Amino acid sequence: MIQHPAFTIEPWCLRETELNLNILAQTESLFALSNGHIGWRGNLDEGDPYGLSGSYLNGVHELRPLSYAEAGYGYSERDQVVVNVTDGKLIRLLVDDEPFDVRYGELDSHERVLDFRAGVLDRRVEWSSPSDRRVRIASTRLVSLVQRSVAAIRYEIEAVDHEVRVVVQSELVTNEPPPPPSGDPRVSAVLDSPLQAVGHANEGTRCELVHHTKHSEITVAAAMDHEVEGPDSTEVVAECSDDLGRLTVAVTLEPGERLTIVKYVTYGWSATRSEKALRDQIDAALLVASRTGWEGLLAEQRKFLEDFWDRADVEVDGDDEIQQAARFSLFHVLQSGARGERRAIPGKGLTGPGYDGHAFWDSETFVLSVLTYTMPDAVAHALSWRHDTLASAKARASNLGLKGALFPWRTITGAACSAYWPAGVAAFHVNADIADAVIRYVKASADEKFERGVGLELLSETARLWYSLGHFVRDGGFRIDGVTGPDEYSAISDNNIYTNLMAQRYLRAAADVAERYCESSRALEIEEAEILEWRRAADAVVIPFDAVLGVHSQSERFTDHQVWDFATTSKEQYPLFLNFPYFDLYRKQVIKQADLVLAMYLRGDAFTLEQKRRNFEYYEKLTVRDSSLSACCQAIIAAEVGYLALAYDYLAEAALMDLEDLEHDTRDGLHVASLAGTWIALVAGFGGMRESNDTLTFAPRLPEGITRLAFNMEFRGRRLRVEVTPSMVSYVLTHGDDLELFHFDRAMTVSMSGPTVFTLTHDHSRQSTPSMPSQPFGRTPRHRVTTSSHEQQEAP
Amino acid sequence: MIQHPAFTIEPWCLRETELNLNILAQTESLFALSNGHIGWRGNLDEGDPYGLSGSYLNGVHELRPLSYAEAGYGYSERDQVVVNVTDGKLIRLLVDDEPFDVRYGELDSHERVLDFRAGVLDRRVEWSSPSDRRVRIASTRLVSLVQRSVAAIRYEIEAVDHEVRVVVQSELVTNEPPPPPSGDPRVSAVLDSPLQAVGHANEGTRCELVHHTKHSEITVAAAMDHEVEGPDSTEVVAECSDDLGRLTVAVTLEPGERLTIVKYVTYGWSATRSEKALRDQIDAALLVASRTGWEGLLAEQRKFLEDFWDRADVEVDGDDEIQQAARFSLFHVLQSGARGERRAIPGKGLTGPGYDGHAFWDSETFVLSVLTYTMPDAVAHALSWRHDTLASAKARASNLGLKGALFPWRTITGAACSAYWPAGVAAFHVNADIADAVIRYVKASADEKFERGVGLELLSETARLWYSLGHFVRDGGFRIDGVTGPDEYSAISDNNIYTNLMAQRYLRAAADVAERYCESSRALEIEEAEILEWRRAADAVVIPFDAVLGVHSQSERFTDHQVWDFATTSKEQYPLFLNFPYFDLYRKQVIKQADLVLAMYLRGDAFTLEQKRRNFEYYEKLTVRDSSLSACCQAIIAAEVGYLALAYDYLAEAALMDLEDLEHDTRDGLHVASLAGTWIALVAGFGGMRESNDTLTFAPRLPEGITRLAFNMEFRGRRLRVEVTPSMVSYVLTHGDDLELFHFDRAMTVSMSGPTVFTLTHDHSRQSTPSMPSQPFGRTPRHRVTTSSHEQQEAP
Repeated sequence: MIQHPAFTIEPWCLRETELNLNILAQTESLFALSNGHIGWRGNLDEGDPYGLSGSYLNGVHELRPLSYAEAGYGYSERDQVVVNVTDGKLIRLLVDDEPFDVRYGELDSHERVLDFRAGVLDRRVEWSSPSDRRVRIASTRLVSLVQRSVAAIRYEIEAVDHEVRVVVQSELVTNEPPPPPSGDPRVSAVLDSPLQAVGHANEGTRCELVHHTKHSEITVAAAMDHEVEGPDSTEVVAECSDDLGRLTVAVTLEPGERLTIVKYVTYGWSATRSEKALRDQIDAALLVASRTGWEGLLAEQRKFLEDFWDRADVEVDGDDEIQQAARFSLFHVLQSGARGERRAIPGKGLTGPGYDGHAFWDSETFVLSVLTYTMPDAVAHALSWRHDTLASAKARASNLGLKGALFPWRTITGAACSAYWPAGVAAFHVNADIADAVIRYVKASADEKFERGVGLELLSETARLWYSLGHFVRDGGFRIDGVTGPDEYSAISDNNIYTNLMAQRYLRAAADVAERYCESSRALEIEEAEILEWRRAADAVVIPFDAVLGVHSQSERFTDHQVWDFATTSKEQYPLFLNFPYFDLYRKQVIKQADLVLAMYLRGDAFTLEQKRRNFEYYEKLTVRDSSLSACCQAIIAAEVGYLALAYDYLAEAALMDLEDLEHDTRDGLHVASLAGTWIALVAGFGGMRESNDTLTFAPRLPEGITRLAFNMEFRGRRLRVEVTPSMVSYVLTHGDDLELFHFDRAMTVSMSGPTVFTLTHDHSRQSTPSMPSQPFGRTPRHRVTTSSHEQQEAP
Repeated sequence: MIQHPAFTIEPWCLRETELNLNILAQTESLFALSNGHIGWRGNLDEGDPYGLSGSYLNGVHELRPLSYAEAGYGYSERDQVVVNVTDGKLIRLLVDDEPFDVRYGELDSHERVLDFRAGVLDRRVEWSSPSDRRVRIASTRLVSLVQRSVAAIRYEIEAVDHEVRVVVQSELVTNEPPPPPSGDPRVSAVLDSPLQAVGHANEGTRCELVHHTKHSEITVAAAMDHEVEGPDSTEVVAECSDDLGRLTVAVTLEPGERLTIVKYVTYGWSATRSEKALRDQIDAALLVASRTGWEGLLAEQRKFLEDFWDRADVEVDGDDEIQQAARFSLFHVLQSGARGERRAIPGKGLTGPGYDGHAFWDSETFVLSVLTYTMPDAVAHALSWRHDTLASAKARASNLGLKGALFPWRTITGAACSAYWPAGVAAFHVNADIADAVIRYVKASADEKFERGVGLELLSETARLWYSLGHFVRDGGFRIDGVTGPDEYSAISDNNIYTNLMAQRYLRAAADVAERYCESSRALEIEEAEILEWRRAADAVVIPFDAVLGVHSQSERFTDHQVWDFATTSKEQYPLFLNFPYFDLYRKQVIKQADLVLAMYLRGDAFTLEQKRRNFEYYEKLTVRDSSLSACCQAIIAAEVGYLALAYDYLAEAALMDLEDLEHDTRDGLHVASLAGTWIALVAGFGGMRESNDTLTFAPRLPEGITRLAFNMEFRGRRLRVEVTPSMVSYVLTHGDDLELFHFDRAMTVSMSGPTVFTLTHDHSRQSTPSMPSQPFGRTPRHRVTTSSHEQQEAP
């Protein structure tokens, strides 16, 4: 947990004004910089101390054998584990031969700022060495959103009141020692020295190192170049060996004098291209970066972000902390996907090694949901990556006796890496989640070429999977038995409602798209009869409902299971999966994360409002939120069914997941999907946005405490801005042709010519009625005490 | 598979008249000798060639860490693996410096005979060395059923037509090289040199070796002594080192001259006693053995077996092969349990390392079922072993959030060793199977002291487990969700009918016994209220029934699942678990082994005859018998519902499981439970024996082909003999007071004064009607062509 106040509350940055070594690993994740291609954790420039040192390149992984005490047919044989690559962040400093280390000497001030508009991490330090030599250090770091293989650092040191002899070592270091192993399955596997040296070179202020992974056979090249500015006496020496490139700069600074170093770092990697080609590539990138120059990189970065915020900004009045968290979240979602370019978006982005660097379904369901409306190109790239892995997904389906494509539950390259099948292979819904992202993107982008190509193939191959996975039973119902839905505390159950509803929709969507593009369908050998079968299955999908309780059942018989004994479960026993056996979790009514509740959002059309309310209330009592993916979903449905205060609490939980380290594993990287969930909770929760009627519908409703919510988004090439206050909502286009949208049930045309405005009358009655849904003992979300409600409490 | 004719068909022995190296590993299992304490595989005396060399001591195991690619709470951390201990079987022979090896020179004749009445393995060989020196070798081996730590070999060599120089090396060898690793989960883990030398000694013709296992810390002592008889020139040298004890005997034999060596071997082992104590123990055993002498050991062995067969023999007229198989089976069942004495009876007995030497539920359900009526003391010992492990079972229950005792799915010492929880921990029925064995033994033995002590505690602690495992649902039903029944192709399902019915019975039985022994119950803190709750749960247990199909459901919703696509499953794809993923097996209607069908045997009272017939027919179509535990259960119910020919086919499959290596893993040891199933299929199937009405009921019915079935059994101290022909049945006591039994529904008194005889009128109509139940494609049992039906076929 991160105890406040760790950061100041400001709208456009995350500022830490004091260094707290207890949360160093967490802040390394929070201050991570990435463009989806390269990721640098927010490690201190000088390397030590560190929580978890990390530099990641999207897709660079090593293989390790998966060993099973008892093996079984079809088990994944090899895991893919993200590699901590050559560290280009390191700039060590010696002050009169004393290494600069915040743990020694006197740290007079230490500030770090992640700037969401500048796209840089700033650091300002005043430090007195043990021998009482005082220096000021200012570093600024960026991972370029424009030049995707480039990162850069500007490092400046100033002598304060004495003359000091300063030595700066700017390094490239490969094979940093790995972190100690952990029993937590969410943590990464430990790789010891995964990179083998292939070659190195240095010339002038430039160094480069080339390495190769042993088993995955990926070549990784890293290079750095420098600009050094200091007093005339400044000396510069470069040297290079297998795992180390080093530029040493030595100078004596008079008080007030400064040494400034700009370090450009580039990375190139490939499993196919030659070492020589990669060296040429990084040389070229380095050249462009240094020609662009530090100021040029800063300007590019700011411009890129200006454009992003114009499409994506969210304004929240009345709650400055949520305002900050919303932008922090969007900034990291952007970082995770901006330049992924046909590679996966891992669950932790490129901010840490958690979950071995694997991508899961939450990339499609959460991260791509946000990017669809804020940076649609990134979505096309991410889904094209899935498409690139089709051959492997088809082989996997065939290997397991199924048709079509079976996408892996967790992967880096597309190969299945699940070591525990009940929560891996059995979690088939990932295939619907991919289809869901395809349709969302196609509707939002109107990208016909994508729909006809990548889209149709992803839809039809996953439809084939569903059709072969389910079966028609005597009464004509189409059942999907023995699968695991989003809730990982239930597994291998029959007719999981989320899976079935999503399969239903995407069997139909595949049929629709296949019929729309006859020629492409023929190329994929999709027959008319097959399309009819998809529709027949979709129409017959079993939707479990408990008529006695009057609620839907998360899966068949779920509501007959014993309710978990929440009363005797202590706070320390969460997350439950670390303290109770799976067999017991699976057989009881206890929910790790929104499952039916997520279905009520994504398949809202399948439920009446009254059903949603009853379901929400029933499942709320069972949901422990041991997954970071839950709170935002609960926020959305809580808002829809009228529990706005509760929705607000969940929004805050999602938004502060990493800023407060609520899951105790922010050290291993950020929960990118939960960050995305912040936007979704705001826009789909309080903005009431739904993808329906073949366009977008909004049903805004603000909780007490939020006095204004405004958000920008991109939809079919337009830029839309929605602004909600407790009493009114306005819709306006800031770019593009008129657009048909819905305000609640009401169709409207939105244009650039001026806002379309509606008044709102909220019914807040549910917020404090006795029927307020309850959570499992000890799992009620922290109540959001906003300024206004706080005032109410103090003024009875 | 073992292709016939590998063995001659004889009533009282298993004879192999020619050595077939292709099935050497299988015959090593078939010819294994054991007394439940010591086990020696039927390896050739000279060691080479071998399939799998093995000497086992009940309980001697090593630990190995269980590694999980993805760990989870409550997973077993360490496996126990049976150790191949010091080999005392070895007697190497050199003939004129040429090692005797059946692969070289000329094997003029080679015969091995396992004698069920003598309890010895005989071997007769005539061999001409590559240099054409001919010798006759005769060896006889026994593992004493009377002196439990003693084995012995008489080895005789005779020069045939030339003078030969003969060297015999009688050895003790530790740490023989392990077999290569295998991917089959039924095979043992590989241990390399598990035994560390502690000490060794030799004196005269005696050698002893003492070793220690590294992690399980068991001390193992082995000693040998010899009697040598040969021409005066015979020289004898003994030597000893860490892993080798050797007595070398050298002599030159004239044609017709013989060298005879009797080798006495004893073993002692303990995890607590000192090395010195163990040495004393084996010295003492060795002394007693050599004083008894070879002939004395033979006589003791024969007498022990005479008594056993008097209690246990089964006679089958009309099918000599089944006659032989029945006695072979009983002989090995006896060997597995005779002198186990508060240790487990492993799934493979002490005949091989399969399943790592673990004991499973089939020890109680199958092996102890037979021993209850043939060697009841062994049952008391085996159940006392379970009782000895109660502390560990209670700790395990508590660790997993349950009450009472949770016995392990697989174990050597009582510690849980399952590496795959859906088929391990989740298979709770083992706890009912133990209770079942307790009640069966108590009813058959009238052993009140056992019932009040071991029995009550095992019953009450497992009743507590059931009560905490299930829960009452809204309608009052008592559900047991998310468990795995006997059928391992279904898992983690709700209300498995076998589990529920067995839990029901043993909740009630625990209540009955607890009420019977108030004082003992008080000592175990069993309250009246608790007993009432056990009864309330038992009365409310959910029994799933599919009203539309009119059959019971193996578990809730099972009959709604997709039926496995048997038509496209080829013969080579069996056993399915080696060729299909568990997720697919679990979600479909495909049954590895009798589950509901076993419930219809053990809980026959819970079904009408018509329900049994309908259920049998329905489940027969789904059962692939990928487990050796299935055929015998199917035989019993097939017989009961009138499919006598089919019952006969299944009997034969169970009986020939190992003799024909039907599961392709007889090399790793015999399927002791399937062997036991042969007796059960005969006695419960064709004898129609059931434990009901608080006594025994018989409902005999013979299939065509079996012209007479007679069996002896022990019940409440009496010796009963039942003799069935197609037209009549007679019951008589050969020992003991009059006994009340049932013939069908009819009560009768059986006594020593003369047989009670009934006539039988069989209705064979179901045997060839069109409603004859069918099996999955390719899984019909081989039809038993008996002499009589064979004749029918030839005479149209």
